Amino acid sequence: MPVTLAELARRFGAQVRGAGETPISGVADFDLAGPGQITYVSEPSRRRRLDSCRAAAVVVSAADAAAYSGNALIVDRPQLCFARIAAFLHAPPRAAAGVHARAQVDPNARVAATAAIGANTVVEAGAVVGENAELGPGCYVGRGAEIGAGSRLLGHAWIGAACVLGRNCQLQPGVIVGSDGFGYAQDGGRWVKVPQLGRVVIGDDVEIGANSTIDRGALNDTIIGDGVKIDNLVQIAHNVRIGENTAIAACVGIAGSTTIGRRCEIGGQVGVTGHLTIADDVRVLAKSLVGASITEAGTYGSGIHVEPAAQWRRLVVRLRRLEETERRLRELEKKS
Amino acid sequence: MPVTLAELARRFGAQVRGAGETPISGVADFDLAGPGQITYVSEPSRRRRLDSCRAAAVVVSAADAAAYSGNALIVDRPQLCFARIAAFLHAPPRAAAGVHARAQVDPNARVAATAAIGANTVVEAGAVVGENAELGPGCYVGRGAEIGAGSRLLGHAWIGAACVLGRNCQLQPGVIVGSDGFGYAQDGGRWVKVPQLGRVVIGDDVEIGANSTIDRGALNDTIIGDGVKIDNLVQIAHNVRIGENTAIAACVGIAGSTTIGRRCEIGGQVGVTGHLTIADDVRVLAKSLVGASITEAGTYGSGIHVEPAAQWRRLVVRLRRLEETERRLRELEKKS
Amino acid sequence: MPVTLAELARRFGAQVRGAGETPISGVADFDLAGPGQITYVSEPSRRRRLDSCRAAAVVVSAADAAAYSGNALIVDRPQLCFARIAAFLHAPPRAAAGVHARAQVDPNARVAATAAIGANTVVEAGAVVGENAELGPGCYVGRGAEIGAGSRLLGHAWIGAACVLGRNCQLQPGVIVGSDGFGYAQDGGRWVKVPQLGRVVIGDDVEIGANSTIDRGALNDTIIGDGVKIDNLVQIAHNVRIGENTAIAACVGIAGSTTIGRRCEIGGQVGVTGHLTIADDVRVLAKSLVGASITEAGTYGSGIHVEPAAQWRRLVVRLRRLEETERRLRELEKKS
Repeated sequence: MPVTLAELARRFGAQVRGAGETPISGVADFDLAGPGQITYVSEPSRRRRLDSCRAAAVVVSAADAAAYSGNALIVDRPQLCFARIAAFLHAPPRAAAGVHARAQVDPNARVAATAAIGANTVVEAGAVVGENAELGPGCYVGRGAEIGAGSRLLGHAWIGAACVLGRNCQLQPGVIVGSDGFGYAQDGGRWVKVPQLGRVVIGDDVEIGANSTIDRGALNDTIIGDGVKIDNLVQIAHNVRIGENTAIAACVGIAGSTTIGRRCEIGGQVGVTGHLTIADDVRVLAKSLVGASITEAGTYGSGIHVEPAAQWRRLVVRLRRLEETERRLRELEKKS
Repeated sequence: MPVTLAELARRFGAQVRGAGETPISGVADFDLAGPGQITYVSEPSRRRRLDSCRAAAVVVSAADAAAYSGNALIVDRPQLCFARIAAFLHAPPRAAAGVHARAQVDPNARVAATAAIGANTVVEAGAVVGENAELGPGCYVGRGAEIGAGSRLLGHAWIGAACVLGRNCQLQPGVIVGSDGFGYAQDGGRWVKVPQLGRVVIGDDVEIGANSTIDRGALNDTIIGDGVKIDNLVQIAHNVRIGENTAIAACVGIAGSTTIGRRCEIGGQVGVTGHLTIADDVRVLAKSLVGASITEAGTYGSGIHVEPAAQWRRLVVRLRRLEETERRLRELEKKS
Repeated sequence: MPVTLAELARRFGAQVRGAGETPISGVADFDLAGPGQITYVSEPSRRRRLDSCRAAAVVVSAADAAAYSGNALIVDRPQLCFARIAAFLHAPPRAAAGVHARAQVDPNARVAATAAIGANTVVEAGAVVGENAELGPGCYVGRGAEIGAGSRLLGHAWIGAACVLGRNCQLQPGVIVGSDGFGYAQDGGRWVKVPQLGRVVIGDDVEIGANSTIDRGALNDTIIGDGVKIDNLVQIAHNVRIGENTAIAACVGIAGSTTIGRRCEIGGQVGVTGHLTIADDVRVLAKSLVGASITEAGTYGSGIHVEPAAQWRRLVVRLRRLEETERRLRELEKKS
């Protein structure tokens, strides 16, 4: 059911320009949008092509609107407004409330009547599933675990005993929360397991990407703050603490007992070693290794981009003889 | 049921040398093969030991055959011929066609009569499963998703709504196709989710390794070309496009909106940042970081191999004072 | 049911100091432990705060005990003793023996009467599940696979046909054992699959972390020795062999046919390329790349820690012109 451009403007605090009665039924990509569809512009490359856009309307900044004659919603931050319009027009279908005939809910679990529990999902004794929560097919919720109201597990997720998930979280498929941390004591060349007795406690509005893993704490808890966003295939070890609204890109590994601040952005494939403290507002560039605590906000990196392999190999040879190079330099300095 | 060496020769276009009537029942490793088994040689280290081989027959090149007196199949590319013989002699057992009593297929899904749907597998409304396709146990196929004829999901795979898998694909266990991409807009220190509305479209003859994840596009689709091979624990972000017959080794991460060409080979643990274009026939060595587009075919790298830690630490110290080293060099140049 | 401090001392070979009749019901973190709880000290930072500890008792070394007046268990290795006490006081609840009504066990599988098979778990024909083994919900055990006595799969694990798991192993959720290795032969720009016909053979007392993947061998087997500990999201390729009591941290990738020795410690995000041999007692620091065999025990590394991005970029520029820098140095040497 389409809405008018004017109604979108009202609802999302935008200024409408052009035909407010234009019906909008969905969002689309800038280059593919057509009648009935709204798109947005924020990149320069698209700005220059604004006049070629065939969307029914475009979400733009005031500056860009000046260069465009079509229907527009004018806002300060076009991408943000567009995200909200997209969420409004394309709300994911909600599963019907109730427990699927092939789900397995323990009689001692407390599942809200408005919650939806999918096929082959298991909910153990003492677990709590809040109002409007949605557990997709093939999930597992262990003894005494809690799933907050409005949270949504897409499917195939595993939530260990006693772990807590806040409200309005989204877990992509295959997420593991509450696996044992990697803790062993040495005994003459053998490893003796240190029982992992803590929980994972996750705040509200957290999203976790496909097949990511978050270990339970050894004695205390692993803690993920409100608003944290975690991409796919991320590993978060025991007793890690992640501050509010921090975003962690794919394939990152964070070792045990490290504390990461608020509003940090951790790039893809970054590794953070254990027992560190990272300040608020730290950005780490892709593939970097954080091996010591970071006390100041700012951007950090240690990744090196590729070059042709033959050239790179020559460079590595020179890197390896840097000690010799410095020695030669010292010799010359002595002589000079 | 064994076949004769002569029949293998006929079937796979090889020249037989020796006793064509030798019965062959299976393949085996060079060092372990015995009566009834066929093996192959392509590495020099094995070539030199050819006479010690106790296999019933060996697949060899013409050059190697000259140095060997036993039964042989002579071909141009021994490994390729051997792969075909192995597939012929050891075809994986096919699951019986039909829907398992504990599968859950929506009445509005279209499942070919020759397809096999395993225990605890869920197929949602509007999904299509082609002829001879095989969904192992514990899979999920979302609303309107399509699984092409002859494709095989080994088990525990999750295919999101509307995603498309071509013909004769193989998905190892735990694969996730169509998870949400990692897209957020900033709103004063908080992340607002950008709905992920695109699909994943996968071509024919694609293989995807265990626990790998492929995100759906944000507005347009994520596209995996025909013949692409993806190893385990690989992350492919939203709107990535991968060209035909490209191979991607384990633990690789490819960030959003990057396009990779055809016949590329991406080494293990490589990271590719977002919005890049990689040409056809590019090879990237293990653990490299690709941070800019690559316009020419060739081999690229940025990985550094280990050395003893004490030595490596000294080198890093010298690397960190390279600016100072250059300054000292300039001083000397001025004086000279 | 609490036990006395004296009983713990007896059971774990410790010397008790103070009130041996003190009841102990559980373990806790040093800073949070209170009445009825026992903790331990081994780090210097805690040693200095021993007198502030409110635990009912502390496991300490003899040296530390001298500086502490409270109840203590005195042992040589406090962490090791504490791990054993924790395992004793907090044994994980065992699932009841038997096959869950929603499990699917083939009549031709052999499942010990003392084993527990969870909901939605599938056990195929010819598989063997040993005494007291525990398969959590949503697991898969393929044809002819073996799960040793006392082994425990927490859930959502996938064990491929013919693979063997020893005794007293623990598999965290989402583990894949026996996926196909990444083996292809080239055929004019296309990849032809090389059938993966080997097994994975895992020894006793092995632990494997969440969502880790271990590929079956191509012709021979992939072998994981007794006592090996593998963290989350680790990839082990076909025909790899890992020696006894080696520990592998999260996000590591080990490429095909590599042999790793005994008692090695492989740091997080390390990559090891294929066909290498790593000696016993080798430690590799986090994020290193092992690209050649290592023949001597010792510690190896190639990771570089972050610095502020602007500074790092300047360094990389200087690294890239090292060839030029050496040339300038040679010029000066000629002149001098």
